[in-house]
Amino acid sequence: MSKYWSQVVRSIEPYVPGEQPKDKTYVKLNTNENPYPPSPKVLAAIREAANENLRLYPTPTCDELRQCIAQYYGLAKEEVFVGNGSDEVLAFSFQAFFNPGIPILFPDITYSFYPVYSALFHIDYKVVPLNGDFSIPVEQFFENNGGIIFPNPNAPTGKYIPLEAVEAIIQRNTEQVVIVDEAYIDFGGESAVKLIKKYSNLLVVQTLSKSRSLAGLRVGLALGQKELIDGLDRVKNSINSYTLDQLALAGALASFEDEKYFQETRRKVIATRDNFSASLTASGFNVIPSKANFIFISHSQMNADEIYQRLREKGILVRYFKKPRIDNFLRVSIGSDEEMATLLQALNEIV
Amino acid sequence: MSKYWSQVVRSIEPYVPGEQPKDKTYVKLNTNENPYPPSPKVLAAIREAANENLRLYPTPTCDELRQCIAQYYGLAKEEVFVGNGSDEVLAFSFQAFFNPGIPILFPDITYSFYPVYSALFHIDYKVVPLNGDFSIPVEQFFENNGGIIFPNPNAPTGKYIPLEAVEAIIQRNTEQVVIVDEAYIDFGGESAVKLIKKYSNLLVVQTLSKSRSLAGLRVGLALGQKELIDGLDRVKNSINSYTLDQLALAGALASFEDEKYFQETRRKVIATRDNFSASLTASGFNVIPSKANFIFISHSQMNADEIYQRLREKGILVRYFKKPRIDNFLRVSIGSDEEMATLLQALNEIV
Repeated sequence: MSKYWSQVVRSIEPYVPGEQPKDKTYVKLNTNENPYPPSPKVLAAIREAANENLRLYPTPTCDELRQCIAQYYGLAKEEVFVGNGSDEVLAFSFQAFFNPGIPILFPDITYSFYPVYSALFHIDYKVVPLNGDFSIPVEQFFENNGGIIFPNPNAPTGKYIPLEAVEAIIQRNTEQVVIVDEAYIDFGGESAVKLIKKYSNLLVVQTLSKSRSLAGLRVGLALGQKELIDGLDRVKNSINSYTLDQLALAGALASFEDEKYFQETRRKVIATRDNFSASLTASGFNVIPSKANFIFISHSQMNADEIYQRLREKGILVRYFKKPRIDNFLRVSIGSDEEMATLLQALNEIV
Repeated sequence: MSKYWSQVVRSIEPYVPGEQPKDKTYVKLNTNENPYPPSPKVLAAIREAANENLRLYPTPTCDELRQCIAQYYGLAKEEVFVGNGSDEVLAFSFQAFFNPGIPILFPDITYSFYPVYSALFHIDYKVVPLNGDFSIPVEQFFENNGGIIFPNPNAPTGKYIPLEAVEAIIQRNTEQVVIVDEAYIDFGGESAVKLIKKYSNLLVVQTLSKSRSLAGLRVGLALGQKELIDGLDRVKNSINSYTLDQLALAGALASFEDEKYFQETRRKVIATRDNFSASLTASGFNVIPSKANFIFISHSQMNADEIYQRLREKGILVRYFKKPRIDNFLRVSIGSDEEMATLLQALNEIV
């Protein structure tokens, strides 16, 4: 604590990202990174963009990338916002659409950045407890509130709710913005993007970090009707006119242009997840059904905390959250088939 | 205006960056970009970083880059913060060190992002009028206040105050943070970095966009004692754990490692500025003495607005601010000698 810190900095409790240890080479299954490299076309586009034009500012309106994403999703360019990872896009969204006063709603077990944003921007919130099976109690998001945000699939559970349930929440909240955080939607879920033309209160947030293997490039996006995108633009242009550098713009564009590679790699991750989930179940683990690139697991004979430590000793990193209701679960990212075989063997040795 | 916009988004007036028109090729002297390309070593480092590791998140603590910058300036790694351009670093600094209540102080003519940040974060401010010659009235920053920020050299005037004047302001404000925005310091000024060990209330903000020819890479930094850097970290980690992508990290590192190229190019810009200023003065222009990579000029016979328009028709972009006290001035970025010769000829034709 410093006497120079502002009131807000004294009061916040920052988010803690998954560890990125450098002491040795781990089988790294703790931050939901994709085991496959980015498309070779993405890497080529970045290398080509590493030229003397880096002396110039990027286009602040990111027109080319937004146009490309708009076309990909059947939207207009004015319905697309891009930012420095979906975390930045989410932070801007909290500022743009949520207020102090009537609390916003999000699940009690969810992405742990939501309460952090709320504290930073003085936004009141109320958490909605998930059902016992970690499913989202849809009707509890129908009550009077100041806005809604939830991931679909949810994190860190991996649980997905069908598009009809998402639409029911949007329909019952037409006076507030409903943010659907689709960081993991490409791993088997159905996106709410197709509802955008119908609902002016819907904002869909996505990222290139997971399904497009670009966690190191920092690109996220928001999709919604023009009024919402304009609101995000106003926040961005009050903080930083250029949040995406020229290399990120070039790489992201190339990623959306290489549909074949995207489909191949996301299908491989899905297949690995489903096979690994079945093997774990056979080994006596409780596996929450997942539509994400991670699974949420527990074991009746051994504490998650202990499994986490034992795996770490064996050079395998998974994520453990010491929080109520989920402190006996581990979140395991889906790596390559080889990595999951290594993990399965280790788990069978431990439990 | 949308019913979905938050109160803060309704009230803010976003910053408007200099235009980046794509309709034709302009002599572009409107956004203070460097006429020289980035160091070839920077481009090589970026190309090398465009590899399969982009599937992984960057190191959230940016240790390697911070260590390199710390060594460059004779500081500790814990005294260095890096972010997505100095605009993001400034926005985080406003959140981290300034409060609603007692107003902060900045000059009436200065970087126009300061009032934008203040509005976004509900920070009260009072502007201190510059003297008639656009110099900063140092003593007027000694009064009771909630914090201070000013650029040195100032923007858009290019006027510089010597380090003793900067130190006097820091000394008279030990209970508040004094932010010295040194975006243009490498073009002939003396940095306040050397005062950091002495004053715990000093934060120096710099950018790689201007003197290191990397506007397209989006890297800025803040230097100060550990407590201040910790405050910035708390804000960053409440918004976005990874604001610098792997390519920006690699390129920025290579830039600080190529001192020779940095010295050569910044000296060329300084020489061009001084020659061009002398020529303009000889042509009857009023040129404010500049220590930046731009100059602030006016002419007694023709309105700045008209000169701006006539230059634009000739394919030359400069920056015109339609604001009180400076609406008869133009801000002209220092380009190559060839670009400045083209501009000089055009100006002589116009006036």
